[in-house]
Amino acid sequence: MRVQFLGTGAGIPSKQRNVSSLAIQWYQHGGQTWLIDCGEATQHQILQYPVKLNKINQIFITHLHGDHIYGLPGLLGSRSFQGGESPLRIYAPKGLQEWIHVSLQISSTHLRYSLEIIEIYDGMTWSDDSFHYVVKQLEHGIPSFGFRFEEKGQSGALQVHKLQQMGIAPGPLYQQLKQGKKVQLEDGTWLNGADYLSDPVQGLRMAVVGDTRFTLASHELADGVDLLIHEATFRAGQEELARNFFHSTSTQAATIAKQANVKQLILNHISSRYQPDEIEQLLAEAQFIFPQTLISYDGFAFEWDQK
Amino acid sequence: MRVQFLGTGAGIPSKQRNVSSLAIQWYQHGGQTWLIDCGEATQHQILQYPVKLNKINQIFITHLHGDHIYGLPGLLGSRSFQGGESPLRIYAPKGLQEWIHVSLQISSTHLRYSLEIIEIYDGMTWSDDSFHYVVKQLEHGIPSFGFRFEEKGQSGALQVHKLQQMGIAPGPLYQQLKQGKKVQLEDGTWLNGADYLSDPVQGLRMAVVGDTRFTLASHELADGVDLLIHEATFRAGQEELARNFFHSTSTQAATIAKQANVKQLILNHISSRYQPDEIEQLLAEAQFIFPQTLISYDGFAFEWDQK
Repeated sequence: MRVQFLGTGAGIPSKQRNVSSLAIQWYQHGGQTWLIDCGEATQHQILQYPVKLNKINQIFITHLHGDHIYGLPGLLGSRSFQGGESPLRIYAPKGLQEWIHVSLQISSTHLRYSLEIIEIYDGMTWSDDSFHYVVKQLEHGIPSFGFRFEEKGQSGALQVHKLQQMGIAPGPLYQQLKQGKKVQLEDGTWLNGADYLSDPVQGLRMAVVGDTRFTLASHELADGVDLLIHEATFRAGQEELARNFFHSTSTQAATIAKQANVKQLILNHISSRYQPDEIEQLLAEAQFIFPQTLISYDGFAFEWDQK
Repeated sequence: MRVQFLGTGAGIPSKQRNVSSLAIQWYQHGGQTWLIDCGEATQHQILQYPVKLNKINQIFITHLHGDHIYGLPGLLGSRSFQGGESPLRIYAPKGLQEWIHVSLQISSTHLRYSLEIIEIYDGMTWSDDSFHYVVKQLEHGIPSFGFRFEEKGQSGALQVHKLQQMGIAPGPLYQQLKQGKKVQLEDGTWLNGADYLSDPVQGLRMAVVGDTRFTLASHELADGVDLLIHEATFRAGQEELARNFFHSTSTQAATIAKQANVKQLILNHISSRYQPDEIEQLLAEAQFIFPQTLISYDGFAFEWDQK
């Protein structure tokens, strides 16, 4: 799994940071790629990095502020223009569907693929073959949501070589052992499936917490995840400013990470008011509370080794 | 007057050319700045060049294809966020107003300035203190319009030093001479105002012809202008392709420039299919017909000396 940060700034684009978007690329699931938010010029950022428009099959929109959605109509059109024909699903708060409809209609944009827009709500959960999804509402000026993604684990693989060494030929018995069952051989010996399976692979768990004040919902989404991506618009000490503008500070993000017992935190959605040396301090403040913290920048790619 | 090309490509953004936008900066009229079209990431391009969001007072939209408008909501929001409070007018085809309304509404974007959106139509003309404006419909897949801008000329300035040398003191007589009238002095001498005025300054005339097939309307807009900016999506020899996709070739643009007797042509809206050597050929084809031809690129600035 790889996270490609495309836009890591807050509010308006700057020369250093574009408005919000990040891509999650699932190598072990056909290379399917998800976008979280799609600020203006996300498709331009994608031109610079190894992300393919036609591999994007799901887009999750945290909230409808312009810096999180204004890149959508262009990206949808370009995905079609470039020959993308596979279906695309967008999970977004109420209101996005109407806007996308009007945007495509007035610009006479005809998509070659099926586009489904699903309205999200607080507490929504669903699953597909490979993932379990959780949505929770955060605290922002307008309805804003965080996401938790739980990759389904894989049971252990049957260690065929062990059975072959014992002279046991492939057959229905292999299937039963693979399911972890106990089986009896013709000579009366009992075999326990668990003894012939490799260790199960634990699925990755991650949470993406977009624009929000310090809130319990972040903790719930982040509980025990491997990777937490959390907004940190402001620096430590600016808690009042953060609260007034419905954002979080670096230390609030780190506190969530620590209390929720996550493995890795990445700070995201950084205000353009900060110069490079202040960005370093913003990171250091968070690391003081939660050492396993990184900070995003446009073009940053984080790879998670799922072995 | 200065034209800053911000996005000079066609259809979708590429690494070389962004989607459509150009800025016209009128130094002699308070630095007021106009945009022609506003494709996605126009505000990002503006970050790179000497164009100020709060100096933009008029935006002219040629047509509603996404590559000409998807940058508008973000640019409008950022202009406000950066403290722009002066009014802004958008001239655009029917449909834009509804889309802008929905875009700002769903994103909870509240502008600090007054925004007026005026629907354009074929043959529309109007004037303000400094300019006369003409709109003509072109031939494109959807309603698409070209613009002609005529800067009002300035009458000659009164050459005060000549009158003072003749011992004529300032007074009501100066005013009459400045208006070009004939006046009689107390000694019976007649003075002709025209003899005491510097040459009048001719206003600049320019035309911007966006997406269109080869059409008579381009000729009408361009008739005798100083500067014609004309689309040239395709190369010479691709007239059939151009016709089918409602675009023009480089030689068609040059033919318009020659027949309309313009002073300077700039080719714009260049397909991303062409490599740099082909771009040179595309330009050469046009120059063979109309030598005073340039080709745009993102970041190209054309200055017109109005002396």
